[in-house]
Amino acid sequence: MATVKLWSDEEINKVPELKAVFDDIRAVRKTDFVNNFWRALANQPALLQRTWASIKEVMVAPGTLDPLTKELIYIAVSTANSCTYCIHSHTAAARTKGLSDEQYAEFLAVVGMAAETNNLANAMQIPVDKEFLADC
Amino acid sequence: MATVKLWSDEEINKVPELKAVFDDIRAVRKTDFVNNFWRALANQPALLQRTWASIKEVMVAPGTLDPLTKELIYIAVSTANSCTYCIHSHTAAARTKGLSDEQYAEFLAVVGMAAETNNLANAMQIPVDKEFLADC
Amino acid sequence: MATVKLWSDEEINKVPELKAVFDDIRAVRKTDFVNNFWRALANQPALLQRTWASIKEVMVAPGTLDPLTKELIYIAVSTANSCTYCIHSHTAAARTKGLSDEQYAEFLAVVGMAAETNNLANAMQIPVDKEFLADC
Amino acid sequence: MATVKLWSDEEINKVPELKAVFDDIRAVRKTDFVNNFWRALANQPALLQRTWASIKEVMVAPGTLDPLTKELIYIAVSTANSCTYCIHSHTAAARTKGLSDEQYAEFLAVVGMAAETNNLANAMQIPVDKEFLADC
Amino acid sequence: MATVKLWSDEEINKVPELKAVFDDIRAVRKTDFVNNFWRALANQPALLQRTWASIKEVMVAPGTLDPLTKELIYIAVSTANSCTYCIHSHTAAARTKGLSDEQYAEFLAVVGMAAETNNLANAMQIPVDKEFLADC
Amino acid sequence: MATVKLWSDEEINKVPELKAVFDDIRAVRKTDFVNNFWRALANQPALLQRTWASIKEVMVAPGTLDPLTKELIYIAVSTANSCTYCIHSHTAAARTKGLSDEQYAEFLAVVGMAAETNNLANAMQIPVDKEFLADC
Repeated sequence: MATVKLWSDEEINKVPELKAVFDDIRAVRKTDFVNNFWRALANQPALLQRTWASIKEVMVAPGTLDPLTKELIYIAVSTANSCTYCIHSHTAAARTKGLSDEQYAEFLAVVGMAAETNNLANAMQIPVDKEFLADC
Repeated sequence: MATVKLWSDEEINKVPELKAVFDDIRAVRKTDFVNNFWRALANQPALLQRTWASIKEVMVAPGTLDPLTKELIYIAVSTANSCTYCIHSHTAAARTKGLSDEQYAEFLAVVGMAAETNNLANAMQIPVDKEFLADC
Repeated sequence: MATVKLWSDEEINKVPELKAVFDDIRAVRKTDFVNNFWRALANQPALLQRTWASIKEVMVAPGTLDPLTKELIYIAVSTANSCTYCIHSHTAAARTKGLSDEQYAEFLAVVGMAAETNNLANAMQIPVDKEFLADC
Repeated sequence: MATVKLWSDEEINKVPELKAVFDDIRAVRKTDFVNNFWRALANQPALLQRTWASIKEVMVAPGTLDPLTKELIYIAVSTANSCTYCIHSHTAAARTKGLSDEQYAEFLAVVGMAAETNNLANAMQIPVDKEFLADC
Repeated sequence: MATVKLWSDEEINKVPELKAVFDDIRAVRKTDFVNNFWRALANQPALLQRTWASIKEVMVAPGTLDPLTKELIYIAVSTANSCTYCIHSHTAAARTKGLSDEQYAEFLAVVGMAAETNNLANAMQIPVDKEFLADC
Repeated sequence: MATVKLWSDEEINKVPELKAVFDDIRAVRKTDFVNNFWRALANQPALLQRTWASIKEVMVAPGTLDPLTKELIYIAVSTANSCTYCIHSHTAAARTKGLSDEQYAEFLAVVGMAAETNNLANAMQIPVDKEFLADC
């Protein structure tokens, strides 16, 4: 249960600045479904607008990383941060963008391996090799 | 400064089970350079062997995710876990595997965006939409 | 479901050292309601006593930070640590202490922004400016 | 040592879109000093522009939370995320905005207390009281 | 609800490589009960095999740390990482291995204390004493 | 470099309430060496006194967990929280309390394994088995 109200479409439609964002979400994503994240952010119109603008720029606009790779990076961070909502929403998004079972299995293996070695390196406080610092 | 000794090549070469792992690291990576992570793990031969075997299976063996994508996932987890050593070593590895400045810029944007929305979703304790749960 | 029993008032009242803490919680907070955190800690009387004494000193005793500011700091840490229980209990406490919708919106924006830039700074391993170190 | 180049003023001044952001940072902050965070982001002009625009909106624009409270929330998140750079830069900022030793002592006590109880609540998996869920 | 299918015994029994792992889990643990973690990993046979082999080597094989100590270390990490599943499964395992209420109370106190001082040390960016670095 | 002053013995000795804590630290630990953590906390006398009292109760007073086990739990949490200072100070303490190389190797393996499976369980959002919930 959220700490804030989740806005229904009926409520959103009464507030033009919120409706404009929701209309854009629907147009960009080509679906009528708008998930709870945006319905919660509707309580903070400025934050809603800024967050959607950023998501469009970062996750939707074409670039040099393909959309599925970006979703995997997103899930990796969300997993390390234990964000249940984000893990579910971005795993669903990755499936929509073509994530196969084989890719997901490899993704999980990398995430687990990274977490394991992060803790080993942190626990032993291993100094960074000068070779890794040489180029910058 | 590490909590354990970092083994030199001279010391490694005196212990056959360690030398075998280091020889394999050099053969697989096609370089004489072996970074400090392995020199620290050399204090724990069983952990060294198991960790290298896992890294080979997860990060080196061919699969459905390309090597650069795996490195980006690895850096994403390492960043969320604040592992200085792993961020440096895997960013260097990603550069070796062809990471461009444009890709790195997009990667950073995704990592930052994910961390931001993770905290927003956690702070508001947003319930997972039933649509995200429907397929499993 | 907790890993420990949650003590009912009837059970608490049978153990004088527990009853004393619960009586004090009720007196200090001016309410009969005692939340589950304390009912779980009742399994560890020494930890219950020490934790309540610390909470009284840190969160209840007057100081130079106002009570609402302290709650916001508490929620910020709880969000970064993904503590569902603490996010809910301290957001409710902040509401009781007067948190407005506008303040909550700004709070969320700061928390999200901090998490984003934390990950950017960590990912790029940006060295601390000497200007930030000069005063101490 | 950063994973990216830190741009000098001389280099910044040669790129109009970067110079425009740096000029604005200096104007808004009323100081010639621009810290390394922005010099690292200069490698990613779009991310630089978006991040600065967000920071201005979230941390500089007037609102219902005072500037010092926002800095304390920022440091709290940065501490939980172990971001050395952000802890230093925002503690320095908080000092500039008037943080007293007494306030800092209380801030530290709250951050420590929150982290302690976060882990206690997580370890015991305490269920959220229905009273905390009732209002939304 | 998981992002992947949880495999039933009937489904497992139809795939020899999965059945072999499940048979071994049951033999090693001397119980017919196989928990959901393994039923989820069954979607990724290579990851299932490698993870079970590692768990056997790390948690089951005799060594110099007793089994209960290892479980407490496991729960400590799981708590700091907010892993609900792991906290529940390893607290249950610790109970099976003899964890008493007194030991659990002391364990909780240590975990809470560590988290508190971690945040105090991080917030103040305390430099490591040279005495702690002298031996390596 | 710390965000606060580290108090020298000369400065401590001029303030009776600080000197009393430092005298007690030296008496309890049977050494003249007082590490930087306490020299930083000296800026916040109330926090210094409360933290030392808690450490004595949690880490020094005899109980049902032996001192070395408590240090290992402490390092595990500190590693997951990426607290460089605490990892160094408590690994040094564990060595003083008899931590052998074999025990440390096993400890590292458990910490790494826990972090790996935490992320796997979080990524797949595996539901907790009812068997783990049955006893409480």
